[in-house]
Amino acid sequence: MGFPAVFTDYARMVEQRLEQLVSDRDAPEILKQAMLYSLTAGGKRLRPAMLLEFYRVLGGDPADALSAACGIEMVHTYSLIHDDLPCMDNDDLRRGKPACHIAFGEDTALLAGDALLTLAFEVTTQVPSVISPQAVVQAVRLLAGAAGMSGMVGGQVLDLQSEGKQITLEQLQQLQEGKTVAMLRAAGQIACALAGANAQVTDAVTAYCNCIGRAFQIRDDILDVIGDTKTLGKPVQSDMQNQKNTYVRLLGVEQSERLVDKLTEQAKGALQPLGNCENLNSLADVLAGRMQ
Amino acid sequence: MGFPAVFTDYARMVEQRLEQLVSDRDAPEILKQAMLYSLTAGGKRLRPAMLLEFYRVLGGDPADALSAACGIEMVHTYSLIHDDLPCMDNDDLRRGKPACHIAFGEDTALLAGDALLTLAFEVTTQVPSVISPQAVVQAVRLLAGAAGMSGMVGGQVLDLQSEGKQITLEQLQQLQEGKTVAMLRAAGQIACALAGANAQVTDAVTAYCNCIGRAFQIRDDILDVIGDTKTLGKPVQSDMQNQKNTYVRLLGVEQSERLVDKLTEQAKGALQPLGNCENLNSLADVLAGRMQ
Repeated sequence: MGFPAVFTDYARMVEQRLEQLVSDRDAPEILKQAMLYSLTAGGKRLRPAMLLEFYRVLGGDPADALSAACGIEMVHTYSLIHDDLPCMDNDDLRRGKPACHIAFGEDTALLAGDALLTLAFEVTTQVPSVISPQAVVQAVRLLAGAAGMSGMVGGQVLDLQSEGKQITLEQLQQLQEGKTVAMLRAAGQIACALAGANAQVTDAVTAYCNCIGRAFQIRDDILDVIGDTKTLGKPVQSDMQNQKNTYVRLLGVEQSERLVDKLTEQAKGALQPLGNCENLNSLADVLAGRMQ
Repeated sequence: MGFPAVFTDYARMVEQRLEQLVSDRDAPEILKQAMLYSLTAGGKRLRPAMLLEFYRVLGGDPADALSAACGIEMVHTYSLIHDDLPCMDNDDLRRGKPACHIAFGEDTALLAGDALLTLAFEVTTQVPSVISPQAVVQAVRLLAGAAGMSGMVGGQVLDLQSEGKQITLEQLQQLQEGKTVAMLRAAGQIACALAGANAQVTDAVTAYCNCIGRAFQIRDDILDVIGDTKTLGKPVQSDMQNQKNTYVRLLGVEQSERLVDKLTEQAKGALQPLGNCENLNSLADVLAGRMQ
């Protein structure tokens, strides 16, 4: 199976398992509903699909890493639920549907996020015995490291602190490193840990993830501007006057696009020692907007 | 060292390590401050002290289980931060100090709670090699199971659902099983996992934890009523008319006190096969209000 079919297939596998992992549990019905509401709201399933594809490329059967892949998606979903809360971004809509706290109330949404973050660590340990306990411990550490105070949560705090302030390129990179790159990198590194990859392979995977993570975020900033200009007829300049801290604001559209290209080539180059990584090369191109 | 000195000593060890585990991390300063603010706000350190004492009774050196003990305290602290938020209990004070969200804002408090829950799983894996990876994986599972949708978070949801409603004794027990008993039981069971205890020992420890967890909660309900009557001159009856779901309301003070006694004896009886558990027997008595 080639790209994008293989990623569609991973997304389907992840969605089925996510539903099963929550439904099977003995817990208050409303909590399960709130967790499933956000887990099944769609999304690209990018992080778990990357984890599964790396695990396959490294010689494993993706089915063996499926629970761990669901763990990383649960962390992503919890972060969206908490981000949308009134005390954070106060977003009523998420992927075109009412946000979790609109549908279930703030208290239940807060707890659904807490429950998903907690369950993520539990399901990360639910792997068959072909994966060693040492590897599972390493996966738990990687997930916690990427999600926590030095990773995603840390990036969120930097984001809060930078609101309404103009920050430097270095500060923006540090913020996005936590908010976006850390969890994408964790997807690759957890796959390496579960597959028992050596340090050289893990370094190559890490380099790829770092590059596509940065490219993904810069591309997102570019789409914000280009999307606005196209659909609203709003000139690029007005978005840049919004004081929103983006790569486009700091570098301009053209230089941002060049950076996306450079990072995408670097990502693909990093994987060369691993041999056949066609699907991951295609993924890098898709995230860079080079193919659909 | 006897009781209570040994527990005071555990609390001091835990507090020192907690501070170190957060301070040493590379993360935004304000986030570390918010996490440390709540972690160092006091408290009995009951859960980590129980974990360390059980680990010692089972033949281990408490110092080896210290990070895992800090993990369980981090989960407890995160739950207090999130509980106090306006969308939950909306409490401005915690242990006589402004709650985390009063001191740092709701957004930072939410993220400090998220970061503590995440860090809890990371530090649970930070044990010396005398503890096997299998045991660490089991500890992660136990912590997640107790904290999550089928444990503490599930209990919180049941609590939200029972607000303003009269519930049965069975429903109250189910609610408290999640909110209070699950994490106390996890303290004992994680100690068993890390020490490699057999099933018979683990069952005895579990029975003790279940009993003192229930006794602890019932005693808390009794103190609420007796405390109110003594300090506010408010008659017991008025508290019971508050529609607050407590054991006292469902059973009355006398029957509640008898139940605390019975559970305390059961807890101590459960430990008999383990030999010398003097400190844990004393702990059961203290929690039951039989000694200071």
